[in-house]
Amino acid sequence: MSLEKEILAEVRPTSRDVEEVHRVVSKLIDELKHEAKERGIPGEPLLVGSVAKDTFLKEPEIDVFFTFPDTTSRKDLERWGLELGEVLDKASRRYAEHPYTHGLYMDYEVDVVPCYKLKEPSARMTAVDRTPFHLVYVRGNLEERQKDEVRLLKRFMKGTGTYGAEARVQGFSGYLCELLVLKFGAFGKLLQEARSWRPPVHLQLEMEAKRGFDEPLVFVDPVDGERNAASAVSLDSLSVFIHAATEYLRDPHRTFYFPEEPTPKPPGELRDEMKRRGTAFLAVSSSAPDLSEDILFPQLRKAEQSIVGCLTSHDFRLLRSRPFLMEREWCVMLEVEIYRLPNVKKHSGPPPWLKNAYSFTSKWESSPDLVAGPYIEAGRLMVEIKRKQIDAARTLQHALPSLSLGKHLNEAVQGSFEIHVGEELLESGYGDILTQFLTRQFPWRIRRA
Amino acid sequence: MSLEKEILAEVRPTSRDVEEVHRVVSKLIDELKHEAKERGIPGEPLLVGSVAKDTFLKEPEIDVFFTFPDTTSRKDLERWGLELGEVLDKASRRYAEHPYTHGLYMDYEVDVVPCYKLKEPSARMTAVDRTPFHLVYVRGNLEERQKDEVRLLKRFMKGTGTYGAEARVQGFSGYLCELLVLKFGAFGKLLQEARSWRPPVHLQLEMEAKRGFDEPLVFVDPVDGERNAASAVSLDSLSVFIHAATEYLRDPHRTFYFPEEPTPKPPGELRDEMKRRGTAFLAVSSSAPDLSEDILFPQLRKAEQSIVGCLTSHDFRLLRSRPFLMEREWCVMLEVEIYRLPNVKKHSGPPPWLKNAYSFTSKWESSPDLVAGPYIEAGRLMVEIKRKQIDAARTLQHALPSLSLGKHLNEAVQGSFEIHVGEELLESGYGDILTQFLTRQFPWRIRRA
Repeated sequence: MSLEKEILAEVRPTSRDVEEVHRVVSKLIDELKHEAKERGIPGEPLLVGSVAKDTFLKEPEIDVFFTFPDTTSRKDLERWGLELGEVLDKASRRYAEHPYTHGLYMDYEVDVVPCYKLKEPSARMTAVDRTPFHLVYVRGNLEERQKDEVRLLKRFMKGTGTYGAEARVQGFSGYLCELLVLKFGAFGKLLQEARSWRPPVHLQLEMEAKRGFDEPLVFVDPVDGERNAASAVSLDSLSVFIHAATEYLRDPHRTFYFPEEPTPKPPGELRDEMKRRGTAFLAVSSSAPDLSEDILFPQLRKAEQSIVGCLTSHDFRLLRSRPFLMEREWCVMLEVEIYRLPNVKKHSGPPPWLKNAYSFTSKWESSPDLVAGPYIEAGRLMVEIKRKQIDAARTLQHALPSLSLGKHLNEAVQGSFEIHVGEELLESGYGDILTQFLTRQFPWRIRRA
Repeated sequence: MSLEKEILAEVRPTSRDVEEVHRVVSKLIDELKHEAKERGIPGEPLLVGSVAKDTFLKEPEIDVFFTFPDTTSRKDLERWGLELGEVLDKASRRYAEHPYTHGLYMDYEVDVVPCYKLKEPSARMTAVDRTPFHLVYVRGNLEERQKDEVRLLKRFMKGTGTYGAEARVQGFSGYLCELLVLKFGAFGKLLQEARSWRPPVHLQLEMEAKRGFDEPLVFVDPVDGERNAASAVSLDSLSVFIHAATEYLRDPHRTFYFPEEPTPKPPGELRDEMKRRGTAFLAVSSSAPDLSEDILFPQLRKAEQSIVGCLTSHDFRLLRSRPFLMEREWCVMLEVEIYRLPNVKKHSGPPPWLKNAYSFTSKWESSPDLVAGPYIEAGRLMVEIKRKQIDAARTLQHALPSLSLGKHLNEAVQGSFEIHVGEELLESGYGDILTQFLTRQFPWRIRRA
C-alpha cells in the first residue's frame, strides 16, 4: 500500500508538529484558567477534538471547551463562554445551536466553546455536552496504530468532498471517522465494507439504539444510544462515499485524497459552454444576514427547493440547481431547459357529469384569459388559457417574495433581491460561481478523465 | 317546447318526401330482383335502415340488404353481393369488415349490402346479419309518436358531433338512437337522464347481458345479449353527449342541432393565431391507401398515438394532436409547446451500490456523448449527455419509419412522407386543416360566446 504510506507521510504531523501544538494548547489552557480566576468564573478548560485524541492532520484546528458546573445558568454559561473567547485574536462570535468563539491563537485556528460538565451524557443540557464523553470513549478504545487509519480516512473524505458535519457539506464528522475505524479496524477494511452498503445503513459498536432513526446512515453513538452520530450525513454524501470507496479500490489514486481544483474559466469559455449546452442560466441572489453558516445553509437549501418547486409548478424543467453562500451574499444558481414557455397552456377540469362542471365552464367561458375550449379530452373538460408568466426570470421576480425561504432569507428578500440571466452573469461577477456550477464531476476525476 | 317543434318541422320528411323515397326503393328492389333472377343468384333484397323503420331525416340514405340462403359460400356471397351493387350509379366497392357497394340511385345515396338470412341473430355469420333482426325489433316496438323523438335525437347528435358509429366519429348509430328512445320514451327524457350518467353506463331493455362489456357505454342489444349496441361509442363521444345534454337543458338553442361551421381562416389570420399561441405546429403526412375510412381511421388513431408517444419520450410536450383523413392523403397535426430542446439532457443511472453502477460509469466516462458527470443526485448516479435530436421535426423524420402506425399506414410511410412546420403549412395547402385544428370548441358554441 505505498500510495497510502505516501499520503500518510504528507498528512501525519511530525513529532515537532505535535510538540508545538501541545505547547500552544498548554499556554491557551493556562491563559483561560487565569482569566476565569481573575473574573470569578467557575469551571475549567478542557482540550477536546482531534488534538486531544491525537487523530489530527497537519495544521489542525484546536478545540477547547470550558466546562461549567451544571448549576450554572444558561445565561451565565453563554455570557462567560463568550468572555473567555476574548483571549483569541480576531475573535468572532458564532451562534449555531450554541454560542462560541472562533479565532486565532499563536496562528492556530481555535474554537473556544462553553459546555456543562455532566456525570453522564444522557443528562445533556446543550448540544455539545456529549463531546467530553466522546473524547473519553475514543481515547479509551482507539489503538495507537488506528490513529493513522483515522488520518487517512479524514484525508480521503476531505478529498472526496464528504468530510464535515456542517450544513454546507452534510458529511462525516471527525468523531464519525474515529467510530468507523473503531468499527472496521482499518481504513482499507472500511472501504471494502462500504462498497456493499445499501442505504439505509445501520452501524453500531457495543451500544444498542435506544430509539428508531430514519437517516440514510445510522451509527449509534457509543456514549448515548438515543443519538445517531451520523445524523448529519445526507443520502448524497453517503452515496458519494460509497461510490468513492468502490472506485478507489478499483483504481487507487492520489486524487482521491488531493483532488485537482477546477481552474476558474475565463468569461469567453463560460459563455461558450453556456451556449453549447443550449439551456438558460439564472442566479437568484440577495444579501446574506450576518449569521453562522450552520443557520443560513439549511435556509438556503430550503430556498433552493422553494425556487425549484416554483419553476416546476410553472411548467419549467430544471437541469441543475445549487445554492452558494458567500461572505455577504447568497445565491441559488439555476439551469433551466427552456427559458420561455408558450403563451397558452392547457388547464384540465372535471368530467362533464360532475356537479362542478358548470362552475368550471361558466367561469372560463366568461374569462378574458380563455384562449380555446372548453372541449372534452379523455373524458374531462379542458380549456386552453393565457399563461401569465412566460419567462423563468419574470416568474421568479413575481413569486420570490411569497416563497418560503426560511426566516432570515425571507427577511433579506423582503429588502431586495436580484435575478441575473445568461451573459449578464458574466458581467455581474458570477464567473467563479459559474465555474463551480458548471463543473459537475466527482472531485477525484477532475482533469483525470 | 317550440324549439323542438321548429327543428322537427325542418328535419321530418314531408308525406311527399316519404312517397318519393318509397317509390325509388320499390324500383330499386324490383331491379335487384330482376338482376338476381337473370344471373341465377339465390336470395332476395330487403329494405333495412332508417327508411324501413320510418325514422329517417330529410335526404335519407337508403340501405338495401340482399339476403342469401345460409348455404351460400362466403365467396359467392361476396361476389354476387358486389355484382348486384352494379345497379347503382357511380358505384364504389367498399371493404370494411364486409364488402358492399355504395352509389347513387335516382339521386339518392344507397348502400347495397349482402348478408345471410338467418333464423336467429346468434347464428350470425357476417357482421351485418343481425341487421334484419334489428329492423323487426324496432318496427315491433317503436311507437308512432316516438319516430319523431328519434328524428330529434339524430339531429341533436349530428349537431353535437356525436352521430355515427363509424371509426371517424366513434359515436351513436341510428339503431342506438332508436334503442335510447325505446328505453327512455322521449328525447327530452333521455337528455334529463343523460345528465346524471357517469361512465361506465350500463343500459338495457328486456334483454340481459350475456357477457361482460368494458366499453364506456353499454346498451345490451335486445336481439343478441352477447352484443353491445353501443360498442362504437368512445369515452369522448359519450362525454360530449352528456355535456351537450346538460348544456341544452340549461339553455336550449338551435345551434345544438345546426351548429355554425367554423369559417375558413385566411392565411394571415392563421399565421397570427399560431404566433399568438407561441407554440409550434407540425403536420406529418403521407398518401392514403385506397381503403375504406373504417379501415384507415383506426390506423390513423394508432399513428397519432405512436407519434405523440415518440415526441413525449423525446421530452417534447404536446398541447394538441389530431388525425385528418382526406381523399388521397392523411395527416396528423401536432402542436408542441417547445420546438427546440437544449443540446444536453440528464440521464439517470443506478445508485452507486448496485452491481451495474460500474458498467454505467465506465460506459459514459468513455463516451463521446458525455457532457458532464457522472455525479450523484438523490442517491443515484447521473450523467449529462448530448441530446441526439433537438428539434421536433427531425426527431419525427428520424423515428417515423420505425414507429408502429398500423399495417397500411406503415406501408404508405415506407414509400414517402412529409413533415411541414409552422408557416410552411400555409404555403403547402394546410389552411383548411389548420382552421379545423385551431378551432377547439363545442360545435354548439361556435360563434355564440
